Amino acid sequence: MGLVVQKYGGSSVADAKRIKRVAERIVATRREGHDVVVVVSAMGDTTDELIELAEQIVPVPGGREFDMLLTAGERISMALLAMAINSLGYTAQSFTGSQAGVLTTSVHGKARIVNITPGRVEESLADGNVAIVAGFQGFSKETMDITTLGRGGSDTTAVALAAALSANVCEIYTDVDGVYTADPRIVPNARRLGRVTYEEMLELAACGAKILHLRSVEYGRSYGVPMHVRSSFSTKPGTLVTGSIEEQAVEQAIITGVAHDRSEAKVTVVGVPDKPGQAAALLRELAAAETNIDMIVQNVSTRGTGRADVSFTIPTSDGATALNALRRVQSVVGFEELLYDDHIGKLSLVGAGMRSHPGVAATFFTALADAGVNVEMISTSEIRISAVCRDVDLDSAVRAVHDAFELGSTDEPAVVHGGSGR
Amino acid sequence: MGLVVQKYGGSSVADAKRIKRVAERIVATRREGHDVVVVVSAMGDTTDELIELAEQIVPVPGGREFDMLLTAGERISMALLAMAINSLGYTAQSFTGSQAGVLTTSVHGKARIVNITPGRVEESLADGNVAIVAGFQGFSKETMDITTLGRGGSDTTAVALAAALSANVCEIYTDVDGVYTADPRIVPNARRLGRVTYEEMLELAACGAKILHLRSVEYGRSYGVPMHVRSSFSTKPGTLVTGSIEEQAVEQAIITGVAHDRSEAKVTVVGVPDKPGQAAALLRELAAAETNIDMIVQNVSTRGTGRADVSFTIPTSDGATALNALRRVQSVVGFEELLYDDHIGKLSLVGAGMRSHPGVAATFFTALADAGVNVEMISTSEIRISAVCRDVDLDSAVRAVHDAFELGSTDEPAVVHGGSGR
Repeated sequence: MGLVVQKYGGSSVADAKRIKRVAERIVATRREGHDVVVVVSAMGDTTDELIELAEQIVPVPGGREFDMLLTAGERISMALLAMAINSLGYTAQSFTGSQAGVLTTSVHGKARIVNITPGRVEESLADGNVAIVAGFQGFSKETMDITTLGRGGSDTTAVALAAALSANVCEIYTDVDGVYTADPRIVPNARRLGRVTYEEMLELAACGAKILHLRSVEYGRSYGVPMHVRSSFSTKPGTLVTGSIEEQAVEQAIITGVAHDRSEAKVTVVGVPDKPGQAAALLRELAAAETNIDMIVQNVSTRGTGRADVSFTIPTSDGATALNALRRVQSVVGFEELLYDDHIGKLSLVGAGMRSHPGVAATFFTALADAGVNVEMISTSEIRISAVCRDVDLDSAVRAVHDAFELGSTDEPAVVHGGSGR
Repeated sequence: MGLVVQKYGGSSVADAKRIKRVAERIVATRREGHDVVVVVSAMGDTTDELIELAEQIVPVPGGREFDMLLTAGERISMALLAMAINSLGYTAQSFTGSQAGVLTTSVHGKARIVNITPGRVEESLADGNVAIVAGFQGFSKETMDITTLGRGGSDTTAVALAAALSANVCEIYTDVDGVYTADPRIVPNARRLGRVTYEEMLELAACGAKILHLRSVEYGRSYGVPMHVRSSFSTKPGTLVTGSIEEQAVEQAIITGVAHDRSEAKVTVVGVPDKPGQAAALLRELAAAETNIDMIVQNVSTRGTGRADVSFTIPTSDGATALNALRRVQSVVGFEELLYDDHIGKLSLVGAGMRSHPGVAATFFTALADAGVNVEMISTSEIRISAVCRDVDLDSAVRAVHDAFELGSTDEPAVVHGGSGR
């Protein structure tokens, strides 16, 4: 008996039949005695259809009116879901982002939640209703305009709402049944994780695991909201995201899993004068253009020219913006050339235990070398090692690393304990 | 130079191409120096598609959530229209009903506008924008919920907004180029009316002319808003609805036009005891069920049984409701039988001049008799005569009456002056 926030993604409410099934699941939770707040995304292809319509009007839609347009998507799904719940003999009320008090910054298309004042949601719960809230949207008090939160916005709405309402748990329903040690489409014997810490989930999300969006996990960690990733198509136990690596028992597995990412490109700035402040000038320009830089590597030139090459990875979607920004400062910084390469792949090994197990990096790179994978860039954090390779090598690289750390399930479910880091 | 409110219906914004054309028309008005407020309906089939989706969830959708669902339609069209205007170098902002201050009663599906507080619209105009407002929707201050206005709601939004903003004119763009003396699909030589009074337009709208909805004309008359009916597909002059029959010059035509309606059914309550209050009891019950009764005829029985038959017409969409309501009081009122007939048609002759021309009724019924049309029910107002006939006879009835009053255009456009009422 408590308050449960459930978030259903677009594929879970893609048509009337699925909406009815979701309604049944919500009613089942309600029947267990819980108060239920539901955050819902737009139905399946709705958002894409709206974008397509907008693109028939203007080449690059954006801004206030584009947000107004896109928010129609959740309006449709949430109203239909409320109807479906009502038809099962329970009462439900749907609320837009602004009705639910989701206050955001005023940056259209990628607003950030600044506060949630869910008075109407609380009243609705007190009246015995299931409260359904539109994901992905809010409004800016400054401009009084409707905003959208950008990618992963519905997850973030759900977690932020769970925090504001002091919910017991935020259940994220999706089309997979949890977080795995690797993408099961690439690694068939990948194993579902019963529990991961926020930090590990953050690293996995940042490194390409698509299950939870980075921002929502950040929010969950900041406010201590347990996040439960589950499939809306099954009743499997899923994965619980909770706790910190500090609390984690010593006998925990040292490795959580392998994430991969095909959505980045590598930009190399060739011949940057090797004097203080040059790389900073480049990065400042990229930051001003709101480009998300991931990995950065600087190679001091061995050609004796006093020049270095700076390489970094960015989302391919930021590619054009980044190149334009860099060209603007070419004459100021005085670099020679720009190279753009979108045939890269990135794999990342994540695990809280690797902090105290120095053998992990060696095992990781040995596995890649044995699989014939050439590593082009490397970056690490306290609990992660990432490597960039050719995109065509990515799948075999992921499998090689997953095997090397024995992450797969066997007849007896494999648990990799401390010390097995070879 | 002034303030123009323009309303565009669903067919005018049915796809991206049409939205762009509407944007050009709005910009042309703006370029003439006018401030422009646009009220827009949902794109073409959007509302029907949303209804269909809802019907996949529940058999008879309605209430709060259905209104939430349907209002997504205008949200889409208004945002796209704003983008199209922005892309032409002018600035536009779209506003939902609640953002535009459209305050309504809280009856979902057929809320009535109680007030408009268009502060944000005025600010937007003052900033030099075209303000686009979602038609058909508002919100209830009492429940804080989104409402819809029901049929004709966008016309009503436009006229009410024009009144609240003291606009010079409310232009209603539609897919026909004005109000005609009869439906040109039935009467090929029907003539466009340059100007009609509110009263005449009210009668025409009430009698089946689909061009303007009754409520919007009532609103226009109450607040003295000139309404200009025009085609969004041409630049033809259209029809101006303004002025009262009292002001109308004596040499005005006595007959305005012929309206027809196929959407009604006739209910006959057979054998109602012929004593005071019995018909009232029936009508009270129908009113409680929110059935819209149009014509009522009571025939005192000639069978010497002390019983009468009461017939009335209602929209066929209210048929089931009306029959159920009547059955509930059958034992109390003690009538014998209910007959339901939806194969009727109604035609109505409207004209301010008929008040002072007693020959009009004679010409009307002679024309129907000569055309072999059997009249089943009759009702009249000061400026209207209506007759119910078999639905199969309706087209020829309309043509016969249109001809008898010489309403059609000839080489020299026909103007029927006072005295020609035969």
